Amino acid sequence: MGWRGLLGFEYGIIQAPLGPDISGPQLVAAVANAGALGLLRAPDWESPDYLRELIKQTRTLTDKPFGIGLVLAFPHEENLKVILDEKVAVLQTYWGDCTTELVAKAHSAGVKIVPQVGSFESAKQAIDAGADGIILQGREAGGHVIGQDNLISLVPRVVDLVGDRDIPVIAAGGIVDGRGYVAALALGAQGVCLGTRFLATEESNAHPIYKRKLVELNETEYTDVFGRARWPDAPHRVLQTPFFKDWRSLPAHESEANQPVIGHSTIHGVVKFQFSFISLVEASCRLLCYNLFI
Amino acid sequence: MGWRGLLGFEYGIIQAPLGPDISGPQLVAAVANAGALGLLRAPDWESPDYLRELIKQTRTLTDKPFGIGLVLAFPHEENLKVILDEKVAVLQTYWGDCTTELVAKAHSAGVKIVPQVGSFESAKQAIDAGADGIILQGREAGGHVIGQDNLISLVPRVVDLVGDRDIPVIAAGGIVDGRGYVAALALGAQGVCLGTRFLATEESNAHPIYKRKLVELNETEYTDVFGRARWPDAPHRVLQTPFFKDWRSLPAHESEANQPVIGHSTIHGVVKFQFSFISLVEASCRLLCYNLFI
Repeated sequence: MGWRGLLGFEYGIIQAPLGPDISGPQLVAAVANAGALGLLRAPDWESPDYLRELIKQTRTLTDKPFGIGLVLAFPHEENLKVILDEKVAVLQTYWGDCTTELVAKAHSAGVKIVPQVGSFESAKQAIDAGADGIILQGREAGGHVIGQDNLISLVPRVVDLVGDRDIPVIAAGGIVDGRGYVAALALGAQGVCLGTRFLATEESNAHPIYKRKLVELNETEYTDVFGRARWPDAPHRVLQTPFFKDWRSLPAHESEANQPVIGHSTIHGVVKFQFSFISLVEASCRLLCYNLFI
Repeated sequence: MGWRGLLGFEYGIIQAPLGPDISGPQLVAAVANAGALGLLRAPDWESPDYLRELIKQTRTLTDKPFGIGLVLAFPHEENLKVILDEKVAVLQTYWGDCTTELVAKAHSAGVKIVPQVGSFESAKQAIDAGADGIILQGREAGGHVIGQDNLISLVPRVVDLVGDRDIPVIAAGGIVDGRGYVAALALGAQGVCLGTRFLATEESNAHPIYKRKLVELNETEYTDVFGRARWPDAPHRVLQTPFFKDWRSLPAHESEANQPVIGHSTIHGVVKFQFSFISLVEASCRLLCYNLFI
């Protein structure tokens, strides 16, 4: 087939930014060296020097272009400055508006901007704002999930909306092999974005137990029990571990904010999270990468 | 491509049984005459003579094979006898176990049996019971939705489970055009089952307003507000009509059973439903086919 990649990359495969710090320089560089688009994950707090160091470290491992994922729901202005100043190839945004102003900032720095959205309306806003591409995340996605639609219904609608404009539509969620990739292309997407598929790689920073659980377990669940205080209204798709099954019916008023602290974790080099039982649930089923000290 | 249909039909397209009485003889015969598999919808109550009449009427309109959908959650033994006695080509089952005993009954009558399921586990049970095919319904489907998984993740898993056994896997949910069809084939399915796509056809018994709303409106929602008393724990995907938006946050203790009756409707030739406001909501956003007398 004549099609060769998107946004100038060799293959139409994007490695999703894996929070909080799973997709580090090793993974992103490996993906870049293989001809696809790897995305670092910026911290969810202002940490410009650390982020610049991540970028530099990645550049020691690859001379290919790569990108960074930025969650707009958290403080990010200083991190954004570093991303633009360092002129990474692609800024991926999530959970916040990809505004005309943000697009203009990125473009004046020579950085392409590709928001990840979960609905037709958000895709329309991103297109109107001038985004260079759209990552459409279906409800089938792992980790944080922003929308309620599924790829089979959402992708063709957005592809029709884009029409003949040069804005690649990239499908994200539940794609793990060539079948999902071809299905996404059949729906009209020009590429795919995979997160969980990259978690169990050697180069990912995920904890070995987490990698093993990903291979062992088959069932997932869409849930709102995690991070209710830290990041409200941001549901996840998680593995159905025994620990999760014990906690899945957590009453709505319970969150990590009203639970006793029983441990802490180092993320992006900072001792950051005071663990409650509830965040332990999160750790057990999703974020074993947190390098727990309990 | 070498592939030509499933279960002996010319094309791998199934027209879903549209409840309560939308897919009547006209639609099913039109689908059969076009070379695909049309499915009548058996009533959700015992009505053997009426069902036999439906089958006979369909046979006056086509000499091609067709099938019938039976919801196992409702009384169905007498209806089942008619289906087997009349030797329709395919019995489709939904919302109940496709048991070894049921499969044996169908096979001894020369009827193929194809359950519609919504999870890997249910697919496994159906395969173990000896089903002739599996319709996998994703959460993206319209009308009643039995599972939580999506086609992109569910189809390849079940296809791998089937392996080289001669059991076609058919994808259902959110498929409306050739793109979805090809995507389903890419995922490993051998056919597709479409419901909503057939609702707005001339041959469907849906109310003209319902057909128009399907074309006009774009957004759907997965909800549990309808039929809580009549068919509990059976969520729907519905159109987001203004009327539905007014009622979507219905408190959990409210149902059609504790609302004043304000009208009634004729279904399958019987004055069947006493309408409350809540079932009116259902009528407005999904079941305008009920031919309301209000």
